[in-house]
Amino acid sequence: KNQINQIIREEETKRETHEHIVDSVDLFLFLSLLILVILTIWFLKHKKFKYVHETGLAIFYGSIFGALIRYVFKDNQKRSIFFTPANLTLNSIDDLPEYVYMSIPNLTQNFVYKFKEPSSDTSSMVSRDFEEKVTFNPETFFNILLPPIIFQAGYSMKRKQFFKNFGAILMFALIGTTISSFVIGGLMYWVVSWQKSLGYMKFLDCLLFGSIVSATDPVTTLSIFSDQNLDLSLYSLIFGESVLNDAVSLILVQQIEKFSGNSLEAGQFFRAIGSFFVIFLGSILVGSLVGCTNAILTKFTKIKHHPSLETALFILISYSAFYASEAIGLSGIVTMLIAGIFQAHYTFNNLSVDSKFQTRQIFHLISFLSENFIFIYIGISMFTFRNHQWEAGFILPSLIVILFGRAVNIYPLSYLINLTRSSSNKIKLKNQNLMFFSGLRGALAFGLAIRNTSTSSRQLILTTTSVIVIITVVFFGGMTKKVIELLNIESADSTADKVDKDKNQKIKGKFKAFLSKLVIFKLLRSLDKKFVKPFLTNSRPTLIDNLPNKLLPIARLLTTIEQIEENDGFNEENFLINDSRGQFENISIN
Amino acid sequence: KNQINQIIREEETKRETHEHIVDSVDLFLFLSLLILVILTIWFLKHKKFKYVHETGLAIFYGSIFGALIRYVFKDNQKRSIFFTPANLTLNSIDDLPEYVYMSIPNLTQNFVYKFKEPSSDTSSMVSRDFEEKVTFNPETFFNILLPPIIFQAGYSMKRKQFFKNFGAILMFALIGTTISSFVIGGLMYWVVSWQKSLGYMKFLDCLLFGSIVSATDPVTTLSIFSDQNLDLSLYSLIFGESVLNDAVSLILVQQIEKFSGNSLEAGQFFRAIGSFFVIFLGSILVGSLVGCTNAILTKFTKIKHHPSLETALFILISYSAFYASEAIGLSGIVTMLIAGIFQAHYTFNNLSVDSKFQTRQIFHLISFLSENFIFIYIGISMFTFRNHQWEAGFILPSLIVILFGRAVNIYPLSYLINLTRSSSNKIKLKNQNLMFFSGLRGALAFGLAIRNTSTSSRQLILTTTSVIVIITVVFFGGMTKKVIELLNIESADSTADKVDKDKNQKIKGKFKAFLSKLVIFKLLRSLDKKFVKPFLTNSRPTLIDNLPNKLLPIARLLTTIEQIEENDGFNEENFLINDSRGQFENISIN
Repeated sequence: KNQINQIIREEETKRETHEHIVDSVDLFLFLSLLILVILTIWFLKHKKFKYVHETGLAIFYGSIFGALIRYVFKDNQKRSIFFTPANLTLNSIDDLPEYVYMSIPNLTQNFVYKFKEPSSDTSSMVSRDFEEKVTFNPETFFNILLPPIIFQAGYSMKRKQFFKNFGAILMFALIGTTISSFVIGGLMYWVVSWQKSLGYMKFLDCLLFGSIVSATDPVTTLSIFSDQNLDLSLYSLIFGESVLNDAVSLILVQQIEKFSGNSLEAGQFFRAIGSFFVIFLGSILVGSLVGCTNAILTKFTKIKHHPSLETALFILISYSAFYASEAIGLSGIVTMLIAGIFQAHYTFNNLSVDSKFQTRQIFHLISFLSENFIFIYIGISMFTFRNHQWEAGFILPSLIVILFGRAVNIYPLSYLINLTRSSSNKIKLKNQNLMFFSGLRGALAFGLAIRNTSTSSRQLILTTTSVIVIITVVFFGGMTKKVIELLNIESADSTADKVDKDKNQKIKGKFKAFLSKLVIFKLLRSLDKKFVKPFLTNSRPTLIDNLPNKLLPIARLLTTIEQIEENDGFNEENFLINDSRGQFENISIN
Repeated sequence: KNQINQIIREEETKRETHEHIVDSVDLFLFLSLLILVILTIWFLKHKKFKYVHETGLAIFYGSIFGALIRYVFKDNQKRSIFFTPANLTLNSIDDLPEYVYMSIPNLTQNFVYKFKEPSSDTSSMVSRDFEEKVTFNPETFFNILLPPIIFQAGYSMKRKQFFKNFGAILMFALIGTTISSFVIGGLMYWVVSWQKSLGYMKFLDCLLFGSIVSATDPVTTLSIFSDQNLDLSLYSLIFGESVLNDAVSLILVQQIEKFSGNSLEAGQFFRAIGSFFVIFLGSILVGSLVGCTNAILTKFTKIKHHPSLETALFILISYSAFYASEAIGLSGIVTMLIAGIFQAHYTFNNLSVDSKFQTRQIFHLISFLSENFIFIYIGISMFTFRNHQWEAGFILPSLIVILFGRAVNIYPLSYLINLTRSSSNKIKLKNQNLMFFSGLRGALAFGLAIRNTSTSSRQLILTTTSVIVIITVVFFGGMTKKVIELLNIESADSTADKVDKDKNQKIKGKFKAFLSKLVIFKLLRSLDKKFVKPFLTNSRPTLIDNLPNKLLPIARLLTTIEQIEENDGFNEENFLINDSRGQFENISIN
């Protein structure tokens, strides 16, 4: 008996060593793929080759790697056993044991097994060592890779154009995405109803699919369109929509998941809309609170004298916004975007010169790597994910349906928005066409789809979403440059004069609501300029200048010496930041 | 039946949502702790408070958090069930199933459980949600947190002093650590033999313990001693030893684990020594290969024109060294150190100015954060790890024994080394005392101990190691400044002149071996200066200058235009890098 125990103990050490080596090989291969992608990006840049984009490259390399793992490297198959517990009644998931202890006669040790997932088929019983390792947890994807990408988007955003187009962006994101979800969901349900073999796709499954694929992706959009020197107003529309509709899509998916099993009732429907707004506004609140906290910390302490500590603090606080938001059930993505914008608008002014550079560069680098890692992973999972459902009767129609869903979002809403805009400022038809074309689906859709694959319908959703992501990214992404040329879209430079003229545009609003919203925006802007920015940053003017004389003691308390001594010229200074594409981007500090 | 399936499916969604929230809370709390540590570090710096060090702080905050989780937050206890498989014979660990499928009558879905660990007691059957989450996988520790710390050590190392003292460093690291392991192992076995209750500690367990706690830790040593403006030669001795003895300790542990169960035989003993050298030299080889690859890539391509790509590539290639080495069974730590040194010596010269700054800053930041994260985690695990063995009869004697083990490493070897050195260059007694005092145990010892905790003896090793780490870091670490003052140790400035004089020192070697080693070093140095550096970097002189005329075509091929046009003054330029402690460090590029 002792001898068997001894053997098991030794073997356990061997098993751990083996596990460690597999982990190392796994990480080494992922890094090698990333290195390969970077070298190819550089090579294509060097040769000025236009029609392949880095996201497409990453997916391509990932797929090759995935196929190799699946079909070439035949590593050890692991043994599995079945058992039926004697007296376990399962009325709810809380009754499901988290751990199973296997005890074996003769051995003093038990073997602990931890719950992993429910599984509806037995084909996945054959599991292979390495394949399992490369298929990482969707949680990792959400918690580690996504936040820096979204934060970087907010932190490096051209805020002026974003806020100028805020009404239109909100309309496309909120209303457009909802329309698109229901149109795609409805049409797909109609498609499904013709096919007996797809009987497991219920209406709510189709609606879920619609919501998942309605989110155009900021990751892909950012990385493809930021290269293009596009008219800033158009860029902010495309990018702004893609960021905010993620949140919309995410919340829609959550609400639909709550419904499933129940029939749709009007009461529930309105409650869903209510909780949608609570989540949306709550997320914005958390993001702005985190941004302000960081601004206050950097303004009123002297941590500036230790730039490395300051940079570390800035990064940690920014990241924590995401988790704080998710922890209380809000949308981390919206929070992260808002935190990024607030940090850029307020905190950035208080940082030491070192930290200004470092924070920009580090977030740029992290988001660049995360992005490529995600696309490599999408490629890999096409082959290593075991439960793909290849149903041509669903996948092929979906490709046409999503185009239609995109069209009923962009064109009717553009028409409505144009009704409120001056003639010089309307969204031109060719720009609408580009917006239609820019509906790339990417990392977020994939992330939502892979999160739950416990049923056949969920598996079909994952397979279809993966196909849509790859096709839109590789095909639409690769064609973007060509399409911009074909559509004769204006570049940022050629519209620069116009933007100035537009400042004096008159809004002949047909929708009074829009007008009032703009008044609110104006009010917010002047509030920010007069009070919030002087309070939160070290830039001029100070609160002493702007607050009424009565409040002078408070104003003095909230004004630092640095702020009074501030050289007005400094804040106007422009930073030259070198982006991953080797272009110099001119980033104004204000 | 369908209804139950439906319920389970819905509940599964709920379970996932819950899981996601717990993950988010977990990450949020870890980040908050890091933020708290940074703010406290800043505050203590600001108030010029001397006797608390950041590593101690991190451990302290971690412990409080761990205690709160353990005793205050009472979260859900998870259910576990036992089962005994009907016909499973277990002759080796390969027969152990990786997955257990639980099937329940009435349900179409199975539930998959994945093997986690062997467990010898049943008290751990009560597992709590949150406690389990904060106790992360030791593999994460090794694979993610350790590499950047070690790389940064090599990348920012004062290489001149390190190589000057290389003989002494090797002696302390190789011979000293081995002596210390056996002395501690032997003494602890003697201690154990008096106590019946510790009968489960065999001789090899004690030896394993000796090897684990013989590694003084570079993480702790770096972060404590780099603040002290110490004499560079002394600093390089302390730091160099701490890096290399990690590797020695790691390899010793591996060898001892191979033995366990068998009795020690002479043949095996010598084979162990043989494989020790294979691992050591192999790791150095891999590290230098990775360094050279990166140097060649950056020299002969124009990736320099895209600094962000260059920085990303540099970071990825550096990281990959660790995994490449671990994947083929070598020591990632030694590889990473050597890769860091090579990158600093060769690749750094080829980088664009942007990348020079960025790579330094990013590795500095990552290693700073990893370091603090590790110490927070050590603090937490003191409370959340469930199987601590609090045996005073082992832990208390070990505290005295490790001091003795350190003493028999430092003093006799210093005596031997001093025999080979000129009188101006001897290791003074007070410096020996500081080296004795600097034997802090830290992250690596903890990492080795927590890697395997499947038996009582392993659990006792973990508990004792944790106590030793906390005491040495908090007490010895906190007293370091005071001790340096008391011992009247010379600072870097006061010995600066002497170092120059020492250049012309004559070695009146008593050990011929040492002399010959130095000749090899000299040869290597001139080889490097004349051929390797001109080949691998863009700095002058070029191979055209140094190779014989016959080889001119080859020399031309391996010389870039940048290298010929290189402004000689540029490489001499000194970079001012601001380190995390807010001090300006003068880093020469060469």
